[in-house]
Amino acid sequence: MMMMDDEMENGRSVYQDKPRTFPAVRSKSYAPLIFRILRQINPRVLAIFLLVVFGGVFYVGARTSPIVVFVFMICIISFCFSVYLTKWVLAKDEGPPEMSQISDAIRDGAEGFFRTQYGTISKMAFLLALVILSIYLFRTSTPQQEAAGIGRLSSAFITVAAFLLGALCSGIAGYVGMWVSVRANVRVSSAARRSAREALQVAVRAGGFSAIVVVGMAVFGVAILYATFYYWLEVDSPGSMRVTDLPLLLVGYGFGASFVALFAQLGGGIYTKAADVGADLVGKVEQGIPEDDPRNPAVIADLVGDNVGDCAARGADLFESIAAEIISAMILGGTMAQKCKIDDPSGFILFPLVVHSFDLVVSSAGILSIRGTRDPGTLGAIEDPMAILQKGYSVAIVLAVLTFGVSTRWLLYTEQAPSAWLNFALCGLVGIITAYAFVWISKYYTDYKHEPVKTLALASSTGHGTNIIAGVALGLESTALPVLVISVAIVSAFWLGHTSGLMDESGNPTGGLFGTAVATMGMLSTAAYVLTMDMFGPIADNAGGIVEMSQQPESVREITDVLDAVGNTTKATTKGFAIGSAALASFLLFSAYMDEVSSFARVPFEQVDIAVPEVFVGGLLGSMLIFVFSAWACSAVGKTAQEVVNEVRRQFIERPGIMEYKEKPDYSRCVAIVASASLREMIKPGALAIISPIIIGFIFRILGNITNQPLLGAKVVASMLMFATVSGILMALFFNTAGGAWDNAKKYIETGALGGKGSDCHKAAVTGDTVGDPFKDTAGPSLHVLIKMLATITLVMAPVFL
Amino acid sequence: MMMMDDEMENGRSVYQDKPRTFPAVRSKSYAPLIFRILRQINPRVLAIFLLVVFGGVFYVGARTSPIVVFVFMICIISFCFSVYLTKWVLAKDEGPPEMSQISDAIRDGAEGFFRTQYGTISKMAFLLALVILSIYLFRTSTPQQEAAGIGRLSSAFITVAAFLLGALCSGIAGYVGMWVSVRANVRVSSAARRSAREALQVAVRAGGFSAIVVVGMAVFGVAILYATFYYWLEVDSPGSMRVTDLPLLLVGYGFGASFVALFAQLGGGIYTKAADVGADLVGKVEQGIPEDDPRNPAVIADLVGDNVGDCAARGADLFESIAAEIISAMILGGTMAQKCKIDDPSGFILFPLVVHSFDLVVSSAGILSIRGTRDPGTLGAIEDPMAILQKGYSVAIVLAVLTFGVSTRWLLYTEQAPSAWLNFALCGLVGIITAYAFVWISKYYTDYKHEPVKTLALASSTGHGTNIIAGVALGLESTALPVLVISVAIVSAFWLGHTSGLMDESGNPTGGLFGTAVATMGMLSTAAYVLTMDMFGPIADNAGGIVEMSQQPESVREITDVLDAVGNTTKATTKGFAIGSAALASFLLFSAYMDEVSSFARVPFEQVDIAVPEVFVGGLLGSMLIFVFSAWACSAVGKTAQEVVNEVRRQFIERPGIMEYKEKPDYSRCVAIVASASLREMIKPGALAIISPIIIGFIFRILGNITNQPLLGAKVVASMLMFATVSGILMALFFNTAGGAWDNAKKYIETGALGGKGSDCHKAAVTGDTVGDPFKDTAGPSLHVLIKMLATITLVMAPVFL
Repeated sequence: MMMMDDEMENGRSVYQDKPRTFPAVRSKSYAPLIFRILRQINPRVLAIFLLVVFGGVFYVGARTSPIVVFVFMICIISFCFSVYLTKWVLAKDEGPPEMSQISDAIRDGAEGFFRTQYGTISKMAFLLALVILSIYLFRTSTPQQEAAGIGRLSSAFITVAAFLLGALCSGIAGYVGMWVSVRANVRVSSAARRSAREALQVAVRAGGFSAIVVVGMAVFGVAILYATFYYWLEVDSPGSMRVTDLPLLLVGYGFGASFVALFAQLGGGIYTKAADVGADLVGKVEQGIPEDDPRNPAVIADLVGDNVGDCAARGADLFESIAAEIISAMILGGTMAQKCKIDDPSGFILFPLVVHSFDLVVSSAGILSIRGTRDPGTLGAIEDPMAILQKGYSVAIVLAVLTFGVSTRWLLYTEQAPSAWLNFALCGLVGIITAYAFVWISKYYTDYKHEPVKTLALASSTGHGTNIIAGVALGLESTALPVLVISVAIVSAFWLGHTSGLMDESGNPTGGLFGTAVATMGMLSTAAYVLTMDMFGPIADNAGGIVEMSQQPESVREITDVLDAVGNTTKATTKGFAIGSAALASFLLFSAYMDEVSSFARVPFEQVDIAVPEVFVGGLLGSMLIFVFSAWACSAVGKTAQEVVNEVRRQFIERPGIMEYKEKPDYSRCVAIVASASLREMIKPGALAIISPIIIGFIFRILGNITNQPLLGAKVVASMLMFATVSGILMALFFNTAGGAWDNAKKYIETGALGGKGSDCHKAAVTGDTVGDPFKDTAGPSLHVLIKMLATITLVMAPVFL
Repeated sequence: MMMMDDEMENGRSVYQDKPRTFPAVRSKSYAPLIFRILRQINPRVLAIFLLVVFGGVFYVGARTSPIVVFVFMICIISFCFSVYLTKWVLAKDEGPPEMSQISDAIRDGAEGFFRTQYGTISKMAFLLALVILSIYLFRTSTPQQEAAGIGRLSSAFITVAAFLLGALCSGIAGYVGMWVSVRANVRVSSAARRSAREALQVAVRAGGFSAIVVVGMAVFGVAILYATFYYWLEVDSPGSMRVTDLPLLLVGYGFGASFVALFAQLGGGIYTKAADVGADLVGKVEQGIPEDDPRNPAVIADLVGDNVGDCAARGADLFESIAAEIISAMILGGTMAQKCKIDDPSGFILFPLVVHSFDLVVSSAGILSIRGTRDPGTLGAIEDPMAILQKGYSVAIVLAVLTFGVSTRWLLYTEQAPSAWLNFALCGLVGIITAYAFVWISKYYTDYKHEPVKTLALASSTGHGTNIIAGVALGLESTALPVLVISVAIVSAFWLGHTSGLMDESGNPTGGLFGTAVATMGMLSTAAYVLTMDMFGPIADNAGGIVEMSQQPESVREITDVLDAVGNTTKATTKGFAIGSAALASFLLFSAYMDEVSSFARVPFEQVDIAVPEVFVGGLLGSMLIFVFSAWACSAVGKTAQEVVNEVRRQFIERPGIMEYKEKPDYSRCVAIVASASLREMIKPGALAIISPIIIGFIFRILGNITNQPLLGAKVVASMLMFATVSGILMALFFNTAGGAWDNAKKYIETGALGGKGSDCHKAAVTGDTVGDPFKDTAGPSLHVLIKMLATITLVMAPVFL
């Protein structure tokens, strides 16, 4: 950040000579550490090294299961495809120097923040790793582990290693998301000068690159861990661990992923929205200058925020979702296969990996289906980008239905229940339909073509107050339909699984929970494409900002504006998708937690009875946790935004020439303020989320010992988890929808309705939009991650509660 | 309302002659139906009739238990005391004609709305009574009832009669609250012309009258029902019902009470806040005229709202709280006494009635301790009214601790566990401390002497958006401490009860739940005084409005302003108290529900396992119910307020002379608009609350039959109830605290901080206050009622789920 400062000083003279254009903000290129190291290695050495690594991986995979080899192959092919995509994107030009200078400034800010943020996160991760290590060294081991001859020490190291690997991969996923977006934004701006279609294609391919890397890494990471443990522990050979118990060793990976994702989402979310709110409050409301105007000192911070908040954080978030969902489904598959005494359980265990491998394939097909047109006649014409993205989604989803059917027949066919695979395929269909329904519902509540947002816009005409009341009411009401859909999905998938014909020894149907797991996988079966659409949004947003700041002609701005608007819609709908899958996945993780407790405590743990006062209190505390977490996330944005507002006001007063383009605003000061404030503010809610389940479990464990109630700690934590999940789903839906609706109500008024831009009605709508910002981009997405992090932390920390 | 219209037309000429005073709004006095009927009866006939009724009541009471006679006596004495209070208040003068004319207009509006509202509610109550009747005619009866020889028909009539009586009493409680407040308001205004102390005393005694009637009626009603059933069913004689099963027959009373309270609170809450928000948005924000200014066309509607929303609705709400809490504690006392085979269980069953009888005594002492001073030297001097009210509260609470100890020793002493009464006395102390803690916490978060509201006020200085974000964050965060307190209270009271030494036949401790029940009673042991403080608020608010509208001198306004500010604080703190007792009471009702299901289903129903998918879905639906209910309550206020805003704007445009006092605003049109809109809008959330538990229970009962899961409907409803309770507590805390904090942040700025009145900061704070209005006075209090209504409806409708 300091570097930027100096260069900006140099840039001032240039700026003053050329009014109404943007100054050279930065010229020196910067390469992150990992690239600098890689560049210093001889390419041949690197190639040989990679070959050896991949050879080893494939050897281990081949010793484990042919399915693992299949997964590895698809992952490698996908990585190659992602390299192709990134090469394609990077081959595009960066446009005129004024564009690339702005882009460089954004990149600096984003990478600077990323380094500091991940520095903090990695310190915390190492600390937590030590805590986990010491807990596992003093815990009792499970009978399965004893049978397998895994002592406390190896079990502790397995968990810690999995945790650290998960954390590392999650960090890389976040980095990749940001890495591509800070490079693609300027290329999209530049392409927008030529054609809308090309700009769209660049943004989609850039988003596709990081989506494929994120999903691929989640699959590859879990597969490698699985294969390594399988090979190392000599699973399924006599006297060692059974393969059905293996997935429980992977939970550390999920926890590591969600730990990093939580802080990435919190820090990034606070950063992006504090900068946005601060910039809007002074720029739009007080000074009346447009969004992304170069005269606003907070504008670079705002653009940096899109990258660290939306791209990096969403990458880590989706990585964590998929990892957690794969692991919980593997655990449930293993448990069920063991109960049913299925001869070869590997199909049931590895099914999630295969589903997500196919996800990579079908999403790649979807991404490739969006092509630049060769016809020079349509050059520059603006088509509806939403329709193009939807077409790609349709391609992905049709293929997903087909491949899902293939996977169920291939892996879930068993002689014991010949038609079970068909039931599970139907479960997958339930999941895919649920995903569709969620996307439709979010669209209904947040798109201004429909009634709710129109009503909200109308409420703005009677003032700020009625706008806020109507928005809160809309958000609260919008929880109803998703909850009904998810309820139907859970119950119907459970019953499809239950009636699949799979029975345990005593003839009880056992497939229910696995049915719910398969539905979750169905819902996530096009995750990479959905993530692509999601990443598309902030890239387009950034491109628009660069176009605005570099003072490009109106026609170019029109193109990026259209892309930006579509990005807002895709962002809102993918949030609905994320919360739906979180709801399903957390129910799976809850079951996995109960399995885990049973095996540690060596007594069946099958009921969580909320009529017991302590268990009820656990639920109360769980819901309260969600409320306090949301409060801290929102107030972090509010506080940081206030600092930005004061700084921007100060600059406007101290440098009166800014408004006439005569004096240069100090962008880097705003960047620095937002960065340090958001790093400071992310600690409190993050620590709350991690420490409180551990403390509550421990206190009630002791209370249980005193009052002679066995397993009290585990039960209270279970109830806490369930209540927190339910409250979390509802609060996240509320935050996401209310925020999206306020944003689009403002956009609706800006189209000229109810008085249009500048009217009192518009001012009230801007207030709503400001309030919605931390709701939809900080608190809401952080809650998605929190829900799953709570589930994985209770899994890993189970020994503390017993 | 039409009548008012005509009189206002007549009044216009008067108005134009005397600018800057308020016109004659209404002159004809109006007496409600019941008074007109009573007046037509010969006083001697009435006296004899009453003597016969009371004689009969006492005879039945004497046949039941001496404790019931004691309760009856205290209730009668309290009613006499309340008659004394009301005579004292009514003997005060109504001030000059301009005051009483305004007061008459308010009374007309309030009584008109009350008639229409309760007309609608009574129609719905009769419809529901028919539904209950038909359900009970087709249900199976419990073994206890069969043993007692109660057939389906009598059981159906018992439940319906109890339901209708509860509904009637709840209605009367609401009416009494409003009746006194519309008469006391003008007397407080008038007294304020003489001395602050006298005005305070009038307001307190008026509030005290309705508080004692409300609490007394709850106790008297339950006691009469109990004694009647006891006598009629020949309880405890051989071959008939046991006394320990009797309280279950009373649940209809609780449901009737909460049914009426729900609609009273919804309708009244929507009325009061729609009028308030509408009046403020145009008056304060757009036109810049003060609150309660006679030029504002919505001002009478706003003042009417205080009476129907705060007084009438709060009366019904507290009536329902106490009735539900007494009945649930009686059920639990009976169940425990039966399990422990206590020889004379009547002490345990009737304990709640005695506690609330003492409540009447200690609260009367507290009310009487607030005296007008005879010293003419202090006439007109403003003392701190909060300190005076607090002194009265201290008197009440010290006496409550003493009488609570006496009651436990008297009724809960048993040879089987000689020290049990001491444990229960400690439980009561836990409850009293919890009440204190709740009051303190609400004060901390809503009083501008403390940090949170100051921070909120500071956030207003950066705009509307940051004010709202900070307020939402404050409200969400404020849930933490109350939840921790209630958690400690539940667990510690449970364990005090558990270790009381009371054992069932097989030696298991059984006193836990009763301990929680006793703590709840401890919390409510000064309910009448707390209700007095609560009623004080709207009366003072109204008095201030009358003073402002009748253009009294500044010194009089100062006195009512101080009283009004104190009223705001007492209102906020009693809300904390109400939600705390609701949280405890609903946990009791939940246990009562499980007892009820066990006895209907004839199988033990002791666990609600949230690991079952359907039960989890029930929880999800329960929490969702709270969100949607809140949404509809808020949007009802928003929509109605928009109608008011449009009407007020229209009047200002069509009658430009209003602002110069040259033209008269059409007050009655605003009153009519708000009344009809709030009646229309209360139906949707109310119906949702009543219908959804029935539908969900019924659907899952059928699903359970299909999938062969016994008691599935009952389990899903239980989980729904628990999740709804937890979410409801948290949401109500959020709404109440955020609303109170916004209100006081505005008041803090109005004291001159951060720019004072008229600054941008103040405008942002007014926006927050507007948003807070429906939160704290519509959605929040409705949620208190909803939580308990859900508990009683599931108790009454249990046969549907089985």
